Amino acid sequence: MHYPGGAKTINNKYITYGNRGMSLEDDLNHSNNYYLNHDIAVVHKKPTPICIRKVSYNEKNKVINDALFKNPSTTDYNGIYKGKYIDFEAKETKNKTCFPLSNIHEHQINHLKKILYHGGIAFIIVRFISLNKTYYLGADLLIKFKENNNRKSIPFDFFHENGYLLLEGYSPRIDYIKIVDKLFF
Amino acid sequence: MHYPGGAKTINNKYITYGNRGMSLEDDLNHSNNYYLNHDIAVVHKKPTPICIRKVSYNEKNKVINDALFKNPSTTDYNGIYKGKYIDFEAKETKNKTCFPLSNIHEHQINHLKKILYHGGIAFIIVRFISLNKTYYLGADLLIKFKENNNRKSIPFDFFHENGYLLLEGYSPRIDYIKIVDKLFF
Repeated sequence: MHYPGGAKTINNKYITYGNRGMSLEDDLNHSNNYYLNHDIAVVHKKPTPICIRKVSYNEKNKVINDALFKNPSTTDYNGIYKGKYIDFEAKETKNKTCFPLSNIHEHQINHLKKILYHGGIAFIIVRFISLNKTYYLGADLLIKFKENNNRKSIPFDFFHENGYLLLEGYSPRIDYIKIVDKLFF
Repeated sequence: MHYPGGAKTINNKYITYGNRGMSLEDDLNHSNNYYLNHDIAVVHKKPTPICIRKVSYNEKNKVINDALFKNPSTTDYNGIYKGKYIDFEAKETKNKTCFPLSNIHEHQINHLKKILYHGGIAFIIVRFISLNKTYYLGADLLIKFKENNNRKSIPFDFFHENGYLLLEGYSPRIDYIKIVDKLFF
């Protein structure tokens, strides 16, 4: 593709993305679209589970008039890479020194345990917003940390020492599949 | 667990389930719970995707006051069995002689194609309600049928000849993993 000004535009775009402060969810949706369109992997974010209490019909559509959010019983993302099942949860924190474990529900931890038991690839992606750093951490390490600690949060250093820093790029923005490939294939 | 009357109650329950005409979705949720609790597989139905237009807050909860249903871009079910990614769509039809292809969106077909490309296990489960018969059909056969035919429906006989009949049982109600195991492991 030819952009007026060539690579400069791409650089500008890169800078823009960085400055705009896109959410982790936006970055991951963008990356998943990239993986999908380039036949690298198929990963989708699951829709938010809701409990519908009232619907009505207008001329064109069925409309939801009353509904509540439900607690998700699984993680937000799953899909396939090279035939294998992959599954992860993604969270942002404004905290500068640690990741509060209250961000991940107990049933999500249990779900990740199940995925590991069945031979799947399970992990979490955590972004420290104020530090502008995003990490990949294996679900096995998350589970071990929870089992061996009474702490209600995982220190930043734990991510730095045991996780993998995900650098922000242009496309895909967050190349977590690169880490999965390195670790499992 | 002790039921008053012992096994009889279970038999009664079995008969009751059969007579009650549970929906395919109920049967599959029940089967997936069975697989989950017995550490056989982890398969979940994805929540229905919606587009939220208005929310409000009452004392306890965030409430959705206005939302629309969106067309799903993937199938309804996915998960893991023996490390492999599995993915399927489940549909019921009242039609006695064929399964109308309008039941499965074009982007769902494309999704199934992608899953096959990436080495996943992809299929559809179709229940002919009036015939009380439920079939497993490989996504490859569904795709081939669509490519080689101008027909807008798949004849019942095609399922009978190319699919696998899923007998209804007590627990799991629809043992589709048995077919997956036979075909892929």
